[in-house]
Amino acid sequence: MELDRRYVITFSCPDRTGIVARISGFLAELGGWIVEAAYHAGDNWFFTRQAVRADSLPFGVDELRARFAAVADEFGPEATWQVTDTGVPKHAVLLVTREPHCLHDLLGRISAGELPVTLDAVIGNHEDLAGLVEAHGVPFHHVPFPGPRDPKKEQGKVASFEKVRQIVDSFSPDAIVLARFMQILPAHLCEEWAGRAINIHHSFLPSFMGARPYHQAHQRGVKLIGATCHYATADLDAGPIIEQDVIRVDHGDTVPDMVRRGRDIERLVLARGLRWHLEDRVLVHGNKTVVFR
Amino acid sequence: MELDRRYVITFSCPDRTGIVARISGFLAELGGWIVEAAYHAGDNWFFTRQAVRADSLPFGVDELRARFAAVADEFGPEATWQVTDTGVPKHAVLLVTREPHCLHDLLGRISAGELPVTLDAVIGNHEDLAGLVEAHGVPFHHVPFPGPRDPKKEQGKVASFEKVRQIVDSFSPDAIVLARFMQILPAHLCEEWAGRAINIHHSFLPSFMGARPYHQAHQRGVKLIGATCHYATADLDAGPIIEQDVIRVDHGDTVPDMVRRGRDIERLVLARGLRWHLEDRVLVHGNKTVVFR
Amino acid sequence: MELDRRYVITFSCPDRTGIVARISGFLAELGGWIVEAAYHAGDNWFFTRQAVRADSLPFGVDELRARFAAVADEFGPEATWQVTDTGVPKHAVLLVTREPHCLHDLLGRISAGELPVTLDAVIGNHEDLAGLVEAHGVPFHHVPFPGPRDPKKEQGKVASFEKVRQIVDSFSPDAIVLARFMQILPAHLCEEWAGRAINIHHSFLPSFMGARPYHQAHQRGVKLIGATCHYATADLDAGPIIEQDVIRVDHGDTVPDMVRRGRDIERLVLARGLRWHLEDRVLVHGNKTVVFR
Amino acid sequence: MELDRRYVITFSCPDRTGIVARISGFLAELGGWIVEAAYHAGDNWFFTRQAVRADSLPFGVDELRARFAAVADEFGPEATWQVTDTGVPKHAVLLVTREPHCLHDLLGRISAGELPVTLDAVIGNHEDLAGLVEAHGVPFHHVPFPGPRDPKKEQGKVASFEKVRQIVDSFSPDAIVLARFMQILPAHLCEEWAGRAINIHHSFLPSFMGARPYHQAHQRGVKLIGATCHYATADLDAGPIIEQDVIRVDHGDTVPDMVRRGRDIERLVLARGLRWHLEDRVLVHGNKTVVFR
Repeated sequence: MELDRRYVITFSCPDRTGIVARISGFLAELGGWIVEAAYHAGDNWFFTRQAVRADSLPFGVDELRARFAAVADEFGPEATWQVTDTGVPKHAVLLVTREPHCLHDLLGRISAGELPVTLDAVIGNHEDLAGLVEAHGVPFHHVPFPGPRDPKKEQGKVASFEKVRQIVDSFSPDAIVLARFMQILPAHLCEEWAGRAINIHHSFLPSFMGARPYHQAHQRGVKLIGATCHYATADLDAGPIIEQDVIRVDHGDTVPDMVRRGRDIERLVLARGLRWHLEDRVLVHGNKTVVFR
Repeated sequence: MELDRRYVITFSCPDRTGIVARISGFLAELGGWIVEAAYHAGDNWFFTRQAVRADSLPFGVDELRARFAAVADEFGPEATWQVTDTGVPKHAVLLVTREPHCLHDLLGRISAGELPVTLDAVIGNHEDLAGLVEAHGVPFHHVPFPGPRDPKKEQGKVASFEKVRQIVDSFSPDAIVLARFMQILPAHLCEEWAGRAINIHHSFLPSFMGARPYHQAHQRGVKLIGATCHYATADLDAGPIIEQDVIRVDHGDTVPDMVRRGRDIERLVLARGLRWHLEDRVLVHGNKTVVFR
Repeated sequence: MELDRRYVITFSCPDRTGIVARISGFLAELGGWIVEAAYHAGDNWFFTRQAVRADSLPFGVDELRARFAAVADEFGPEATWQVTDTGVPKHAVLLVTREPHCLHDLLGRISAGELPVTLDAVIGNHEDLAGLVEAHGVPFHHVPFPGPRDPKKEQGKVASFEKVRQIVDSFSPDAIVLARFMQILPAHLCEEWAGRAINIHHSFLPSFMGARPYHQAHQRGVKLIGATCHYATADLDAGPIIEQDVIRVDHGDTVPDMVRRGRDIERLVLARGLRWHLEDRVLVHGNKTVVFR
Repeated sequence: MELDRRYVITFSCPDRTGIVARISGFLAELGGWIVEAAYHAGDNWFFTRQAVRADSLPFGVDELRARFAAVADEFGPEATWQVTDTGVPKHAVLLVTREPHCLHDLLGRISAGELPVTLDAVIGNHEDLAGLVEAHGVPFHHVPFPGPRDPKKEQGKVASFEKVRQIVDSFSPDAIVLARFMQILPAHLCEEWAGRAINIHHSFLPSFMGARPYHQAHQRGVKLIGATCHYATADLDAGPIIEQDVIRVDHGDTVPDMVRRGRDIERLVLARGLRWHLEDRVLVHGNKTVVFR
């Protein structure tokens, strides 16, 4: 067993005394060696993430999961939890359109082993990025979408999204990454993929929701531009925020300058958000996240 | 004459060729020693700021102003310009309510000679900050405003703002700083003080306009909070932005944490914006600014 | 008893399994309501900070301290710990020279209740800042130091530092803050005040140790300047770092510009570092710190 | 002729009055439309960069160069200048070892048209990155270097560097980018390639020069780590700095965490520095740079 293999427990429930003691006591009795432990309590809710050395326990992840289930039960029906094994690789599918920068960045990180994930497929509504994807040995699926003037646009979209859904679901991925995918995910997919569909929006939300955020930013004359990585929900650009960051612009930056410079922050923010998601560091509660970095 | 005394020319007009040559030629003929020169052209408009060593010219600021007027005239009626003299101190009046942090910060900077300004008065709609102001030897004017449940609230506000206006205008200040002044400036004062009334808003605008921005930010779960220094206009929190900055927050930050931590960025952003305004580094064009830092 | 009164336990010892369980179990048995809990393990050492609601325990801080001592004992002679009570205000003494900005900033934060501390005295080796200090109702002690050309400089310094020591020690302060104090603390005072003497150095250490760091930075042509808050040790500018931050400069920034702009980051970094120290968030281990922000 | 083609003049000389007027007058007489103009004066030296619309001049870059030479001559033998044409692509060669992240990032930016450069070749002292390079259609040259225990290490290095030199010089590149090339460039190559050889060092220089900067940073317990893009000179890690940036770390970051997180800042800082170099925005003066961003 690899030396740095971990079992990761995430758990949340209504706040009360004794939760930390119960969970850490449970792990201590088993001889579990905790390498990372983080807690948060707020708005009357409690959250924790514990990473335990796999080789410190006398059994595997399934047994740990079974035993932890009993502990979690003590905290009532609202308790939410999972136990994952860093030895079992996570899987992801990427959705793209034409902008290559986020895709290129993620492919580089994945191929360099920087992100703990297997990339099963990339789906594009245009073919532009097929070559880049296939050069990395990843299957590219082209699912065309109807153009803006197509008279049967709405039906066409439904059909296209159905194809996307079938491809995605065939992999049961842990993350469906909208890496500058320029189509609005329908509500039923947001729901089906809740907590797994990760979007990068090229503004500091809630500023400049919707289309052409850099144009909006230029128009308003802001002195910083940003990017937001969030879970996709039916409410456009309003899902739980995982990560945000900004860079400074000034009067000399045209819209194309902002587009170009913003790519640097989009790449970073998406890569960070995705990493935290894959490492089970993000706990969603209502429309907010607790991120145990 | 002080060695570092400067005459500062700011100028803007519709863009065309030869403007830089005309202005720099004008200064060169006079033997003017340019110590700072900045240009910007965008959206078909041209902007420049030139700082000339006062001792390099054979005459004073009035003569320079008179001669430059002739140059500016060549660029048509839309040209906007001014010539200021760093040897003539600028004046400011501050408007405050109860929050001391921006006031305290500005008083410290002014008394340490860090900001090139004479503070003529501080006006407060509460008396809380009178002691702090008077300890710095600055007159404090208390102008009470009607409370939220006062039946004659609207008339009362009109009368109070009229008193504020009289005090402010008695100093003809170069800057009227709303240093966390919790009353909305009426449209006619925004207009009268256009380009001189500087507000600090405790959010990264256009996010979280209006009341209680930190509560809004906490509610939305953003990962950065910010502050915006802008010229006050009749359109609330929508005036030309001079400066913005942000700091990172996380799930552990409560609203009071955000309020406390946000003060650090409010102080900085206001002090920077005010400095640039006082140094004639901010040129307003439409609803945007060119800031020659 | 105030609602937000906390008992804060900090504890560190050689790492092993079961520490979290033991401490949280101990608190759970007492019914302790943990409002903040942070852990870190690294380099074979374990660190934790726990904040417990005072009103959740059936006794006061002395009893908690006595009981926790028994728990701590189980982890051997290398275990280091303390239990503090946020209801008992911490005390600080400030040492200054002539630069007012850090002093002014801290006085403002303290008078606004932003920093949980009582300021017992300010000691200056020059009298320049006496007025500012006394305006805040804080006693100022002037302890002159011999000038650089004084033939008895060394003896004079010994005598001056002895006076400083006497004043400081008369308050037994929790923090001795060198707020731009331009004298090098002798080794025996660094030792006596180990873990309590907090310095702000105006560079991003370890760059530009020693004198005139902004001159050094300008000379080297760096693109960022910084400030470092650290515990003072006998090894000049090499003590455990509590906090650092930087701001961007460019070729247009002269040394005086850097000095002026650097003040903004010195103020912030010192205020943050001092806050974390006062809130018992900083655990020193060797020459490094664990900061549970 | 492309609409956005520019001729870019960079010029520096001992400071005096009238330089701006002379250069802008020269351009105005020709009808030159200046789209970007930046000036800096400091340490008695004057610097400028002017970008002129190519289609606003009645002749090509060679004629402009010839005419500008006469203007530059007026400012004495110390004046340094060049005139470049954005319509003529710049060329670059990259030197790499095994770390892929900077290489991958630059390949992505170049293939997306984000950096105005033609990449002629990548030279590696290991073969690891050949596949990545060739997938982008760029020739990869493997030049092995002697290992650390090779008895003829010194001679071997001389021979290897001679091969590197031959390959590089065969392209006469405008930029020789050391994209995490883990061999120290010999003094004669630093000299031959002065102002063209660009290195990325994985620390905030002058902190942590030399080998294993992240280990040094971890050892010192700094709270920020950085990266520095600079021109290579014979004095290791001491050349003129083009760009620097930092990211926050804390006690939880191990050396491998710093290595991983530092990559994000290395990539960005190198890409920014290279872009400014390629756009003729960097003027070197002594051991410092003026960067007209």
